[in-house]
Amino acid sequence: MPDTPSASTLLTGYLDECRALVVEEIRRLVPADRPKAAFLYELMLEYPLREAKGLRPALCIATCRALGGTLEAALRPAAALELYHNAFLIHDDIEDESLLRRGRPTLHHLHGVPVAINVGDAMLALSLQPLLDNIGVIGLGPSLRILQTVTRMARESAEGQALELEWIRRGTWALEDEDYVHMVEQKTCWYSFITPVKVGAIAAGQEARRTEVLAEFARCLGITFQIQDDVLNLSGEPGAYGKELGGDLWEGKRTLMLLHMMRHASPEERAEAERILCLPRPSATLEPLLEGLVARGELTPSGREELRRAWAPPSPPLKEKTPEQVRFLLELIHRHGSLEYGRQVAREWLRRAERAFAECEAGFLPSVHRDLLQALLSYVLHRVK
Amino acid sequence: MPDTPSASTLLTGYLDECRALVVEEIRRLVPADRPKAAFLYELMLEYPLREAKGLRPALCIATCRALGGTLEAALRPAAALELYHNAFLIHDDIEDESLLRRGRPTLHHLHGVPVAINVGDAMLALSLQPLLDNIGVIGLGPSLRILQTVTRMARESAEGQALELEWIRRGTWALEDEDYVHMVEQKTCWYSFITPVKVGAIAAGQEARRTEVLAEFARCLGITFQIQDDVLNLSGEPGAYGKELGGDLWEGKRTLMLLHMMRHASPEERAEAERILCLPRPSATLEPLLEGLVARGELTPSGREELRRAWAPPSPPLKEKTPEQVRFLLELIHRHGSLEYGRQVAREWLRRAERAFAECEAGFLPSVHRDLLQALLSYVLHRVK
Repeated sequence: MPDTPSASTLLTGYLDECRALVVEEIRRLVPADRPKAAFLYELMLEYPLREAKGLRPALCIATCRALGGTLEAALRPAAALELYHNAFLIHDDIEDESLLRRGRPTLHHLHGVPVAINVGDAMLALSLQPLLDNIGVIGLGPSLRILQTVTRMARESAEGQALELEWIRRGTWALEDEDYVHMVEQKTCWYSFITPVKVGAIAAGQEARRTEVLAEFARCLGITFQIQDDVLNLSGEPGAYGKELGGDLWEGKRTLMLLHMMRHASPEERAEAERILCLPRPSATLEPLLEGLVARGELTPSGREELRRAWAPPSPPLKEKTPEQVRFLLELIHRHGSLEYGRQVAREWLRRAERAFAECEAGFLPSVHRDLLQALLSYVLHRVK
Repeated sequence: MPDTPSASTLLTGYLDECRALVVEEIRRLVPADRPKAAFLYELMLEYPLREAKGLRPALCIATCRALGGTLEAALRPAAALELYHNAFLIHDDIEDESLLRRGRPTLHHLHGVPVAINVGDAMLALSLQPLLDNIGVIGLGPSLRILQTVTRMARESAEGQALELEWIRRGTWALEDEDYVHMVEQKTCWYSFITPVKVGAIAAGQEARRTEVLAEFARCLGITFQIQDDVLNLSGEPGAYGKELGGDLWEGKRTLMLLHMMRHASPEERAEAERILCLPRPSATLEPLLEGLVARGELTPSGREELRRAWAPPSPPLKEKTPEQVRFLLELIHRHGSLEYGRQVAREWLRRAERAFAECEAGFLPSVHRDLLQALLSYVLHRVK
């Protein structure tokens, strides 16, 4: 299914519209009557207001409306999920020591780890409010089922995150593709795909049995999305301020491609790759951030020198990965055809998603909302970022 | 009201009993069927299983039962609050860079910041489950009011925490006692006192109007508790492995005593104190932790040397507080009678709590539960740790 211009136009327009509605809803949630906490609420808006695709709100709203539900029924839950997502990103960025998020410095790089942890916690707390407020719109029963789903989602995400951190901490490499898929299902699919779709269906008044078929569609869509995300991380051109190229390799993330390479590498290559992957990433990673600020004219070169002196990294207490070593890993991945393998597995998951979509299709009303869900099938694999 | 032996025995027994019930409930919540996430659930039990007073569960259960409610109605909400409390402690310990919690190393010192952030998030998620499970016991209406209260609690706590972090980050000293009280009300009272009492009352079937009087009792009790906590932090003898003496001064926490001292110090003293308080605490604070482990025989002296070499702190990039400077602050606090001032203000808040208790008293059944609430009035001021 090639990405036709019309599907792509529909997608962009629909996503933008949903995102605008949800951002408006999030702004409404932020209490205006708390002058003493104004700085907290400003920081809570920092990530949600940065440019983003808004995939989760669109999935939630499109599912609800394709099933005959109203925009009003889905809007507050969509805002809750977007808030939850942004809270998760803030904590995830600290855990992964990321420098940039949506083309700007991460929250903990701007305001320190203590403030960033607390802002994330505040957003998690605030994300419950629209779900409680929605009782008046969709009633008690569906609202409680949504609360149950969101509680489960939060648990699944934390379990997925724990699994990935544990693999990195323990230097675990004896992993099969299904271990990767299980982790992605918990860490990514539950909160980015399964829950938006389930919540949209519940808001539309669907029973539990029906939401399970939709959840399977969402799960396959999410796994395709994540494999493609990992492929792009390894193969994309490094933009001036965008995602760090090969960031996953620096972090030692277990991607399908890395696991494939490790299975096919020679014993010597494998031993060397394991040795490199266990090294921490350099702690002096402030550099690209400073470079980006200077390039954008947000920092003077002399200001950069001053910051470099103040933050002068100590000689590292442990050996760290070098760019040459990360390049070596990337070469191994190319040599063993692991990128092509990843793309192929992604295509298989997309076919499963298409079959699941076909199974749900009878329940959808012919509408732009149904078309959006279908357009996402093509999008998750063919997007370029 | 002196602390009579019988009140103290009642208190200890009651708290222990509630804690045991709640720990059992928390263990039940931890999924046994998730072998792939076993390490996550083990870490989620780490803080709850350490020795603790269990003030929040006791407050919740005693309030519910003193108002004629059942233990069953209050038990799950009490477990939810205890889980929430422990999640907050994990994140708080990272934010404050604390080394010890309940006599043992903090979670992030044991397992790193990424894991600790995620464990806290998982506990926040899990804490919603018992509130949803409780619908079958107390019904939909009261369960939703409890969810509303807990959502508000989480927001108030995050606002209080943000306020305190902001004061420290900006070096704000132009603060009155009422600013301190406002921060404590948000940061401590809401989740440690007001919410346990409100939730206990709702579980007992009380209407909103009635819970407000109880909330005032809880608020005054909580402010007394926190002032006394700050007094103990400045005046207690340093135990072998307990809380770090004067930890609040190292952190630059705005306590009532510090604010009083700053108001009464000479301009020179004040300038010097401000200069010291703005310095970061030393980053080489691994030392007391290592000392404690060696003293308890959990680490060999040669193991300590190895750890010291691996974690060799760099020469600090910024000037840090020295023990002499912290001692200077402590001397100023003694010189200006600030500890005595703090104790006096705590007594005033206790009297307000007593008056609020007297106003609620007619609603309480004569019972051990009512007696426990009364015993807490004495306890919050006369406890020694």
